[in-house]
Amino acid sequence: SPRSAFFRIGQMSNVDLDDELLDPVSARLVPYPSPLTTHPFFLWGCRPAGALDIDKFTERGGLSFSLLLWATLNSAFVLVGSAIVAFVEPVAAGSGIPQIKCFLNGVKIPHVVRLKTLVIKVSGVILSVVGGLAVGKEGPMIHSGSVIAAGISQGRSTSLKRDFKIFEYFRRDTEKRDFVSAGAAAGVSAAFGAPVGGVLFSLEEGASFWNQFLTWRIFFASMISTFTLNFVLSIYHGNIWDLSSPGLINFGRFDTETMVYTIHEIPIFIAMGVVGGILGAVFNALNYWLTMFRIRYIHRPCLQVIEAMLVAAVTATVAFVLIYSSRDCQPLQGSSVSYPLQLFCADGEYNSMAAAFFNTPEKSVVSLFHDPPGSYNPVTLGLFTLVYFFLACWTYGLTVSAGVFIPSLLIGAAWGRLFGISLSYVTGAAIWADPGKYALMGAAAQLGGIVRMTLSLTVIMMEATSNPTYGLPFLLVPCFGLYDMHIQLQSVPFLHWEAPVTSHSLTARYGGTVASIHVSQDERECTMDLSEFMNPSPYTVPQEASLPRVFKLFRALGLRHLVVVDNCNQVVGLVTRKDLARYRLGKGGLEELSLAQT
Amino acid sequence: SPRSAFFRIGQMSNVDLDDELLDPVSARLVPYPSPLTTHPFFLWGCRPAGALDIDKFTERGGLSFSLLLWATLNSAFVLVGSAIVAFVEPVAAGSGIPQIKCFLNGVKIPHVVRLKTLVIKVSGVILSVVGGLAVGKEGPMIHSGSVIAAGISQGRSTSLKRDFKIFEYFRRDTEKRDFVSAGAAAGVSAAFGAPVGGVLFSLEEGASFWNQFLTWRIFFASMISTFTLNFVLSIYHGNIWDLSSPGLINFGRFDTETMVYTIHEIPIFIAMGVVGGILGAVFNALNYWLTMFRIRYIHRPCLQVIEAMLVAAVTATVAFVLIYSSRDCQPLQGSSVSYPLQLFCADGEYNSMAAAFFNTPEKSVVSLFHDPPGSYNPVTLGLFTLVYFFLACWTYGLTVSAGVFIPSLLIGAAWGRLFGISLSYVTGAAIWADPGKYALMGAAAQLGGIVRMTLSLTVIMMEATSNPTYGLPFLLVPCFGLYDMHIQLQSVPFLHWEAPVTSHSLTARYGGTVASIHVSQDERECTMDLSEFMNPSPYTVPQEASLPRVFKLFRALGLRHLVVVDNCNQVVGLVTRKDLARYRLGKGGLEELSLAQT
Repeated sequence: SPRSAFFRIGQMSNVDLDDELLDPVSARLVPYPSPLTTHPFFLWGCRPAGALDIDKFTERGGLSFSLLLWATLNSAFVLVGSAIVAFVEPVAAGSGIPQIKCFLNGVKIPHVVRLKTLVIKVSGVILSVVGGLAVGKEGPMIHSGSVIAAGISQGRSTSLKRDFKIFEYFRRDTEKRDFVSAGAAAGVSAAFGAPVGGVLFSLEEGASFWNQFLTWRIFFASMISTFTLNFVLSIYHGNIWDLSSPGLINFGRFDTETMVYTIHEIPIFIAMGVVGGILGAVFNALNYWLTMFRIRYIHRPCLQVIEAMLVAAVTATVAFVLIYSSRDCQPLQGSSVSYPLQLFCADGEYNSMAAAFFNTPEKSVVSLFHDPPGSYNPVTLGLFTLVYFFLACWTYGLTVSAGVFIPSLLIGAAWGRLFGISLSYVTGAAIWADPGKYALMGAAAQLGGIVRMTLSLTVIMMEATSNPTYGLPFLLVPCFGLYDMHIQLQSVPFLHWEAPVTSHSLTARYGGTVASIHVSQDERECTMDLSEFMNPSPYTVPQEASLPRVFKLFRALGLRHLVVVDNCNQVVGLVTRKDLARYRLGKGGLEELSLAQT
Repeated sequence: SPRSAFFRIGQMSNVDLDDELLDPVSARLVPYPSPLTTHPFFLWGCRPAGALDIDKFTERGGLSFSLLLWATLNSAFVLVGSAIVAFVEPVAAGSGIPQIKCFLNGVKIPHVVRLKTLVIKVSGVILSVVGGLAVGKEGPMIHSGSVIAAGISQGRSTSLKRDFKIFEYFRRDTEKRDFVSAGAAAGVSAAFGAPVGGVLFSLEEGASFWNQFLTWRIFFASMISTFTLNFVLSIYHGNIWDLSSPGLINFGRFDTETMVYTIHEIPIFIAMGVVGGILGAVFNALNYWLTMFRIRYIHRPCLQVIEAMLVAAVTATVAFVLIYSSRDCQPLQGSSVSYPLQLFCADGEYNSMAAAFFNTPEKSVVSLFHDPPGSYNPVTLGLFTLVYFFLACWTYGLTVSAGVFIPSLLIGAAWGRLFGISLSYVTGAAIWADPGKYALMGAAAQLGGIVRMTLSLTVIMMEATSNPTYGLPFLLVPCFGLYDMHIQLQSVPFLHWEAPVTSHSLTARYGGTVASIHVSQDERECTMDLSEFMNPSPYTVPQEASLPRVFKLFRALGLRHLVVVDNCNQVVGLVTRKDLARYRLGKGGLEELSLAQT
C-alpha cells in the first residue's frame, strides 16, 4: 500500500529515530529525502547509494528504471573516487597497508605520507563505500593514521609548501619512522577498537629492534585514538558518557550462553580454518592473475577509471538480480535490520537478501554474527557468498581507495553461518550449533586465508569480540599471504624476517662492489679533508661475511647501507638494502630478482 | 549456639557444597575435618591454615589458645617452606621473575632452570600460601613455566642425571632462550588468563630482536596454557564444558552499569595513580633498606628461616588482634564471602575484617572489586590497608618462594575501595562512585607503583578484567621499579634498553683490552691451525666505536662478546657483556659498578 511504502521510506532515511518511526503517524512527518543530498553525510555507518529508491520504484513497477538509476548513481560515485586516485595521487590506491609496511621496513616510497595523499585517500574511500563497491573503510584508516603522524613529526607539509618550524628534532629519518609506526597503530586502534592489536601490528610490520619506550608511546597513541573515537561516536549517538563504541566496526558482545564454545567444537573450527585457507588461496590466486592482467593492459589512468566504474555497475546489477530473484522473506518483528525492504514479501516482512546487500558490509557482518537462528535461509547465504566472493576479488586492486578486511570478514561470516545452519540440521538443531558463532569463526578463518593471519590480526579479532576465550580458535587458522604478494609484484627492496635458507654461500664481496666512477688525474689531486664530518666508526663487515649475517645486521639495526672492508680494513664496497632484497628463494633455489629502478 | 558453630564449621570445610549446606540438617552430616589433613589439598583457591579453628575456639572462649594454635601452625608451614629454599635451592626464593629476566637478557644464573628448582619452587609457594604469609602464587608460575620449557627444550635433566636424547637440535643456547621466553609467557598466561599479556611480557623482558615466527610460537604456547588451565579448572569445578576460568586469578566481570567510567572520572583515576606511585615508592624504599639489612645480617640460611617463621607468627598475631578488635558486622544474606566467621557478631552476620584476612589474597581482591557498596566499613579498610602494606613489605624478599603481584593488588584494592567510599560520601552517594570500580583502579595504581607498570602489565590487567575500555586508566599510572632494583642489588651484567646518556665519549678501546696471558717462547713455537674451526667473519667494531654503538649491537643481536679491531684489522681486544653493564648513570655522572665475579 502507498502508506506502508511511505512509512518504510521514512524509516530508511532516519538513523536515530527508529523507535519513533514504529508509530506510522509520526512517520508521516518525515519528508522524502533526495539520495544525492543525504548520502555523503550518512556514510560512516550507513548504507550504499540507491538503497532508498528501490522500494519506491518497485511499488510503481519501474524495475528497469530502478536498476538503471542505481547502477548509474553507484558508477558516478566510483567515477569520481577512482579519477582522483588515478589522476591526482596513485599512491592513495588500495588500503595503503603494503605501502606503509614498505615504508616501515626502510623502503622509500614517494608521496606515501604526504598531506595530498591523505586528502585523496579519505575522499576516495568515502566515494568507494558510497558507490556500493565490495570494500571496507578500515584498512585506509591505517594509512591515514600514518600520514597524520608523519605530518606531525615533521612540522611541515610538502603539499602545502608550509614549514611550521616546529618539532625540528623529529625530522630525522628514524624519528619519522617511529611516528609513522605510532600512526599506523592508532589507525588500527580506531578502526577495530583494538589498541593492543594496533601496537602489535606496528611492531610486526615496523620494528626491527624492540624498544620499550617506543612501544610504550605507541601504545599510548593507540589508546588515545580508540578513546577519542569512542568519545566522538558517543556524542554522535547522543549519549556523551556512554563510551561503548571503541572502533569503527564493533562486532558486538559474544557472551551469551550459545556463544560459548566447548572442546569438541575445536576440530570443527580447525576444519573451518582449512576451508578459509583454501578459499583464501583461491582468492589470492585469482587476484594475482587479475593483478598481472592489470599491470599489462590496464595501466593507463582512464582505463583504470573505466574498470572501476564497470565493477560498480556490475556489482549493482548482480545485487539487483539476486535481490529480485530471492524469496527469502523474514518477519520484521524482532529483527535488527536497519533498512528493511519489503519488495515481494508480505506486509510485516522484509527481504533477507536485500538486507545483506543494502547494509554497509560492516552492518551485514554484525547482523550475520548476531541475528537469531532462522534470519537467513541457506540458499540466500550460499548465493551471497558465491557472488560476494567474486565481486570482492575483482574489486581488490582496483584504482580506488579501499580496504579488504571487511569484505573478507563478510565472505567468511556468510559461509560460516551457512556452515552453522548445516551443522544444526545434521545434529538435529543442537543448541550449541548457534549459526552466529560459526559466522564469527568463518569470518576469522576467511580473514586469515585472505590477509594472512598474523599475531596482530588474532589479537585484533580478540579485542573486537571482547572475548579472550576465542583466542585459541582464532589461532587455529592457516596462514596465506596477500599483502606480501602485492609487495613482491611492485618489486621494492622489502626485507623479510629471515634471509633465504640457501643463501649461506653468498658473501658480501659478491653483493657490494664499488661501482666504477670515472675520476680524472686532475680531480685526484684536488683533495678535501672531510674527516671532521665523517663517522669514524661506521658498522662494517668483512668481505667474507655471508648473506644471512649481513641480512641480520640490516634487519636488527634498520640499516640502509653497510660498508664492506677487506682484511686490511680498506673499503671494498657498499651493500645496500636492494642488494639483499634481490635474493629470493624461488623454485630453482636462490633467485635474483630484477628490482624497479627508483 | 553450638549448633550454629557446628553449621559454620561444616560450611567452611567444603568448597563445592555451599548450596547444600545452607540447609542445616544436611550440614550436620559433614564431619569435623582436621586442618592438617585437609589444607594442602584445598590450597589452590582456599584459605590459609588456622581459619577453621578460630571460630570453634571462640565459642569455647579459648582465645589465647586459638592465637597460639594459629601462629604455631602458620610458622610450622613457613618453617618447612623456608627451609627447603634456604638449604636446598636458594635460587627458588622470591617470585623468580628477576632471575628469569636476567636469564633472558643473556646473563647466566646457575640452577635457575633446573628441575630441582622447580620442585622447591612449587612446594615452597604452596607452603608460603598455606602459612598465611602476605604473598601471591602468580609470580612463581612464571618461573615454573620457564623451568618446564627449558627442560623440554633440552630433553635432559641435570638434577635427575638423565639424558632422554631427544630434541638435541634445541640444545643451542639461543633455542633454549626462546623456549624459556615461551615458558614465561605460558606462566603469565596461566596465572592471569592473559595470553597476549604473556607474550608482551616475554617480548619486553627477553626479545632483543623481534622475530615474527618466534612470537607466533610464544603466543601459541600462551594460548594453549590458558586453555589447558581453563579445562582442568572446569573439571575441578564440576562443569567440564564451561571454560570460564582462564587464569588462576580471575577478576570477574566488569560490565555492569556502575562499572562504566566516564571522562570526568579520569582526573580522579590519575590522582589515584599518583597515590599508588607514592605508596609504591615508599614500599620500594622500605624494602630496599630491608634488603640491604638482610644482605648484611641475615645471610646465613638458619637466620633466614627464623626470619620467615617470625614473619608468619607476626602476621597471624596482627591479623588476630585486628579481627578481634573489629566490630564491622555484615549480614550473611546476599554476601559472597566463602568462609564467614561470626565471632562477636549477631546471628546471621559475619565479621568483615575476618573475611578480608581469612580468604586467600586472590579471593579478597575479587571481593573488594565486586561486593556491593556497604560490605566493608571505612575503618576496616583503612586498618587493613595499613597493616597489610607493612606485612607485605616485610614479607617481600624473605627466603621463601612467593610473589608480590597479588599483595600489591590487595593493598591497592583496599585503599581504592576506601577512596571510592569517601568519594560517594563527598558526592552524596552518587551512583557512579561504585566503590568496586575504585578498588580496581586502586589495585592497578598500586601494582604500577610497586612492580613498575609496563606495557605487559597494562595488557594483563586489561585481559584479567576482560574490559578493554579500562586500558586508558590502566595506562595513566606512574612507573617505579622494584624488580630492576633487585637485579641491581645482585650485581649481574644486566643490559637495559639504552646505553647511559653520557657515555658517548667512552670507546671500545677503553672497554675491551686483552688480558695479558703469559706465553713462553717454547709455547709460541707450538702452533696449531685452527682456521677450519674459526668463524672467518665475526662481528667486529673498530676501537674508536662509542659505547652506545657497541651497546646497540649487543642488544640488537643478543651478543655475549664482540671483537675489537684496530685500523689494520688486527684484534686488539674483546668487549663482553660485563664491560657494558659496568657503566650506569649515577648521581655524579657515569659510574663504574663493581660486578660480582661469576
